Amino acid sequence: MNAVAALAAPAAKAPLERTVIERREVGEHDILIEIHYAGICHTDIHQARDEWGRAAFPMVPGHEIAGVVTAAGSAVTRHAVGDRVGVGCFVDSCRECENCLAGEEQHCTAGETPTYNGIDRQGRPTLGGYSTHIVVDENYVLRVPEGLDLAAAAPLLCAGVTLYSPLKRWNAGPGSRVAIIGMGGLGHVGVKIAHALGAEVSVLSQTLRKKDDALRLGADHYYATSDPKTFTELAGRFDLIINTVSANLDINAHLKLLARHGTLVVVGVPSDSDSYHAVSLLTGGRALAGSKIGGIRETQEMLDFCAEHGIVAEIEQIGADEVNDAYDRVVAGDVRYRFVVDIATLR
Amino acid sequence: MNAVAALAAPAAKAPLERTVIERREVGEHDILIEIHYAGICHTDIHQARDEWGRAAFPMVPGHEIAGVVTAAGSAVTRHAVGDRVGVGCFVDSCRECENCLAGEEQHCTAGETPTYNGIDRQGRPTLGGYSTHIVVDENYVLRVPEGLDLAAAAPLLCAGVTLYSPLKRWNAGPGSRVAIIGMGGLGHVGVKIAHALGAEVSVLSQTLRKKDDALRLGADHYYATSDPKTFTELAGRFDLIINTVSANLDINAHLKLLARHGTLVVVGVPSDSDSYHAVSLLTGGRALAGSKIGGIRETQEMLDFCAEHGIVAEIEQIGADEVNDAYDRVVAGDVRYRFVVDIATLR
Repeated sequence: MNAVAALAAPAAKAPLERTVIERREVGEHDILIEIHYAGICHTDIHQARDEWGRAAFPMVPGHEIAGVVTAAGSAVTRHAVGDRVGVGCFVDSCRECENCLAGEEQHCTAGETPTYNGIDRQGRPTLGGYSTHIVVDENYVLRVPEGLDLAAAAPLLCAGVTLYSPLKRWNAGPGSRVAIIGMGGLGHVGVKIAHALGAEVSVLSQTLRKKDDALRLGADHYYATSDPKTFTELAGRFDLIINTVSANLDINAHLKLLARHGTLVVVGVPSDSDSYHAVSLLTGGRALAGSKIGGIRETQEMLDFCAEHGIVAEIEQIGADEVNDAYDRVVAGDVRYRFVVDIATLR
Repeated sequence: MNAVAALAAPAAKAPLERTVIERREVGEHDILIEIHYAGICHTDIHQARDEWGRAAFPMVPGHEIAGVVTAAGSAVTRHAVGDRVGVGCFVDSCRECENCLAGEEQHCTAGETPTYNGIDRQGRPTLGGYSTHIVVDENYVLRVPEGLDLAAAAPLLCAGVTLYSPLKRWNAGPGSRVAIIGMGGLGHVGVKIAHALGAEVSVLSQTLRKKDDALRLGADHYYATSDPKTFTELAGRFDLIINTVSANLDINAHLKLLARHGTLVVVGVPSDSDSYHAVSLLTGGRALAGSKIGGIRETQEMLDFCAEHGIVAEIEQIGADEVNDAYDRVVAGDVRYRFVVDIATLR
């Protein structure tokens, strides 16, 4: 075991504080990663504050991890010392179920092993990316292509693939009309990826406050959902709507914005149930679907795509001692558009 | 105008009675059909009893129409006198919107013209198939292939295409696991079509009462949803579930029966809203979708498919004076599996 520096929540709602945690020895299939950057996902806050239940403490959040390989087990073939790598929302899975075999480990029927606030397959608690090092099986480590800034690439490991996967699954591309609900950490990356895929991209946001940014990042249109006219003027407009906002929406009103056979995809989890009327689905043969991050293969494909198109997150880099303030700012919607912790400040 | 015999509801909840209605002259693109059979769809009952609102009286229900062409307008090219033909849920549409141009007239953005309880594009009320004759534009008339019994084919015009369309859209076929919720007028035709497409077919019904029929019609499995074990044993089982029951379901419980990327399709309209939790959609990347009958091209494709595979509805043929009793029996679930009115008894 190796002691490494980390930032941990000692209990629900307590501020994160510096601590020391143990990482396992590097096994024959393992990679030791020196973490350089960790993105702050809203999920980190929900978990650290135990807003979803089942939180275990002390908790080291962080599942948008970017760093460099500093050691590799004897059987490792996929990565080598010195490689720039990333780790996303999970670090293992059963590898045997039909979903794992299909490369969709995020839907592992035995339950994928979350990067933090989980129990690994040897029964140990998992601890995330707000730390100087992590040991991960090579099959769950991604290659960060040259040309991507390591700090700004970190959020791609969760936010990037969360948007890339549904955009690809529902064929966003030339001739398709895509709307992204919410111009935040997820949404702004979605705008960039959808634009790079060739889709006509609209942003639906409560206000027009972030319109200029969105247009600069690749959006073609920007609409305020606080304006009721938005819902009449855009009726039947979109082939695909991706809801990045983890809040309960008027589902029927948003389904009406879909063209025939259009799909409204949710990628976040509001605390309450949503409701819809069957007529909203039958009219136009519409669908409501869920999408959950992406598998390892697709995450690598996303990183390669982003490198090819020069896509990274828009980030605000912070030090380890600013994380608690950053959490409050994320909750207040005061970040453009993703906080990334410079892990050098933890050493 | 031509006076023809019909069966009409004079007012909401009043029994249907014999009457005489006017049909328009046969225009140059029109077909005059001598109706031989009209299926009774549950929708007929909802409409005749004004359970959905917007009912206009007197109302002649019936949108599962099978008959023979007895006259054709001067410009007609698609059908000829003597042809066996059918009419489904709509008799016209705008023909110009993107959905009409795509052959999905049931999603006409200007509103398709329903076969009854609608207003046609010339402002006249539409009157349905419980009558001896109907005049319909040739483009909204289907060919009933030789080999299909005309009486038992009538329900295919609504029930058949309502199931065929989602089965095709979501790729039911060899290797796919399909569940049909409800073993009624819609469900039993769905079992036959899904089986003919090569899918592994399960029926989910409240009780096992109709199990023997379902297995005889092509189902591989039959489960009672009143048994809680059904929901644990079948977790993650199905690629496609089609809900033919117009009642509010426990949507989360049914979504859990879907395999990764599976879809729960609703084809009926419960009166109340349904609710779901986003977690049920994210887990497994599942979808909830609606499907509404089918377009003219797909309806013809369905009839041709049914002829090729010897598929018709299981029917109970009745006379015109038995329709009111039949309505009560449909509401009580006491029909195996579709009533068809022998229109000869109206003459």
